[in-house]
Amino acid sequence: MTHPSNSNIDIVKSNTSKIENVDFDNLTFGRTFTDHMFVCDFIDGKWQQPKIMPYQAMTFEPSARVFHYGQAVFEGMKAFKDDAGKVWLFRPEENHKRINISSARLAMPEFPKDYFLDGLEALLKLDKDWIKPGVGNSLYLRPFVIATEPAISASPANMYRFMIICSPAKAYYSGKVRVLFAEKYSRSADGGVGFAKAAGNYAAQFYPTSLAQEKGYQQIIWTDASTHEFLEEAGTMNIFFRINDTLVTAPISDRILDGITRKSIIQLAEDNNVPVEVRRVPVSEIKEAARNGSLKEIFGAGTAAVISPISAFEHGNEVFELPEMENAYATMFKKELLNIQHNLSDDKHGWRREVK
Amino acid sequence: MTHPSNSNIDIVKSNTSKIENVDFDNLTFGRTFTDHMFVCDFIDGKWQQPKIMPYQAMTFEPSARVFHYGQAVFEGMKAFKDDAGKVWLFRPEENHKRINISSARLAMPEFPKDYFLDGLEALLKLDKDWIKPGVGNSLYLRPFVIATEPAISASPANMYRFMIICSPAKAYYSGKVRVLFAEKYSRSADGGVGFAKAAGNYAAQFYPTSLAQEKGYQQIIWTDASTHEFLEEAGTMNIFFRINDTLVTAPISDRILDGITRKSIIQLAEDNNVPVEVRRVPVSEIKEAARNGSLKEIFGAGTAAVISPISAFEHGNEVFELPEMENAYATMFKKELLNIQHNLSDDKHGWRREVK
Ligand SMILES: Cc1ncc(COP(=O)(O)O)c(C=O)c1O
Ligand SMILES: Cc1ncc(COP(=O)(O)O)c(C=O)c1O
Repeated sequence: MTHPSNSNIDIVKSNTSKIENVDFDNLTFGRTFTDHMFVCDFIDGKWQQPKIMPYQAMTFEPSARVFHYGQAVFEGMKAFKDDAGKVWLFRPEENHKRINISSARLAMPEFPKDYFLDGLEALLKLDKDWIKPGVGNSLYLRPFVIATEPAISASPANMYRFMIICSPAKAYYSGKVRVLFAEKYSRSADGGVGFAKAAGNYAAQFYPTSLAQEKGYQQIIWTDASTHEFLEEAGTMNIFFRINDTLVTAPISDRILDGITRKSIIQLAEDNNVPVEVRRVPVSEIKEAARNGSLKEIFGAGTAAVISPISAFEHGNEVFELPEMENAYATMFKKELLNIQHNLSDDKHGWRREVK
Repeated sequence: MTHPSNSNIDIVKSNTSKIENVDFDNLTFGRTFTDHMFVCDFIDGKWQQPKIMPYQAMTFEPSARVFHYGQAVFEGMKAFKDDAGKVWLFRPEENHKRINISSARLAMPEFPKDYFLDGLEALLKLDKDWIKPGVGNSLYLRPFVIATEPAISASPANMYRFMIICSPAKAYYSGKVRVLFAEKYSRSADGGVGFAKAAGNYAAQFYPTSLAQEKGYQQIIWTDASTHEFLEEAGTMNIFFRINDTLVTAPISDRILDGITRKSIIQLAEDNNVPVEVRRVPVSEIKEAARNGSLKEIFGAGTAAVISPISAFEHGNEVFELPEMENAYATMFKKELLNIQHNLSDDKHGWRREVK
């Protein structure tokens, strides 16, 4: 990043590295963390001196508000290493914008852009050996903010902690995914917090998802809570439908996360002259398209999995298997995205940001 | 409680007490905690040895799932002391049932009843000097469960911590409350987690509530997310409307917390031959009743405030002031509830539980 550092980060390096003990070929997502973390506290109405320190457990009061009222938001992003050893981020300003949108909805303070970008940069410099080259490898970055104030009154906290932790990752989902269209449970309401990466949105999905898993489906595609007639998004992915050659996806609303992968795919589709329709997606239309053969693909799009092709869906006790596609959009867009992310192709939209 | 103790709690007492430094006449809600806390960890598929230890900060991994995905539920209950120095709980089994309902919805393990009740009892015996006699004084008890597993995959955790912390309290709200009926924001969706005391439900309300506060309203009365035409509940209270002499309140649903104060008031109303209607409450009906004078009272009901009379509401840019009532139901039910809680009156429903 060519961003000038105003952040004056206080850095305490780890004396030893855990990296020798890590089997990079057998990583379970989100269980292994790098040697350092970034920490910045919000106290007395302002963000204090940012710090990088050895990755470690931290002390919290049992009354810390995050434990009681769920004031917690997060981001998910990745760093990549190219074959020349250069380190790249993908559209990091978008994650910064979005964490502040999430924070605002939860009555939490916004985090300064320079702290966010400089923090990432400084952390990645220290832990760059944890980023392995090769498409499919990445370092998953988890910025998050939690309410730390020790007081259990049901109101916004006055103390917060912003952190970034890093976890080496392989591809998140393996194989094709079978999904259930939601008919009873819902993820978010109009006027709610569905558009925010708010911690509570995720816990709320675990139980319905476990029921789906018992039926043999890995994920739920959420529908609108009022009617369950329109398809919205999955637990950690936006959703695209290919009907004949047109790509269809639900519009952003206050119920749906404004995914960075989603908006990148919409742009890539335009670049490739693939027609895109951003509009409400009726369940009935998708079922009809599956029946008459015009539904060619469904895929999820998100940072963790990049693109997850979906092989089947169930709705109204009817199971629909999707065809195997040659020249699938899912494959094409995944490749294009990975190539941009790994510095293997042109980056005409300026999405790639080198960490220098 | 005559409950036999199977729980075999491991108790480490505090060497000193903080109680001398506490000004019990000037307590801010939820900022002061007693000398001890109850802790029980869920590891390897079961709840481990329960412990009571000095109230203290605790260590958590930055990747603890509660910080990222909001797996966190809680309860709110109170202990009271009568003039003879006996300590009482109010319907504690109901809180136990409800925390397990909340946990189940968030894919968290249920907590055993004997651990819950014995934990409360043992904790209150140690910290009983913190419960001051006199109506209006209480010790607020906060059982809660959080996901502690250090792994940021978006799925239910395998490690949890159940805790109880205690905070001495005076009456929660002072004076009459002015409220805004929700027209745009919403608290929960059909098929969502509104019926659970899930941490994320509370953070989601802070921002809309702060907007209401800027307009001079302390609270929002939430309406259904789909149409905003029906009144549901407030942020931490269920809501009752008195139309002429009939008490009206919304039915329990998957959007509304099944409040213990609410169901106690419904029972007390029956005992007092006050007609009660549990049914949907259209905003339009309440506005019309306010206009024609048949709306006599609105009040909130919840453990913290017991009963909060509401003096005015706004909807559709119209402000409705409620009349000052003599013989208000709010006053009557509050007095009856407090008398039962403080062992000042008969307890014909067996709601009071002595802590022996
Ligand atoms: C609910 C939800 N939808 C969609 C996405 C995809 O967003 P992005 O492409 O920015 O990772 C995510 C995050 O990964 C998510 O949590
Ligand atoms: C959302 C909500 N509604 C209602 C209530 C009232 O429930 P209870 O009477 O059991 O305290 C509470 C809790 O206090 C609450 O958090």
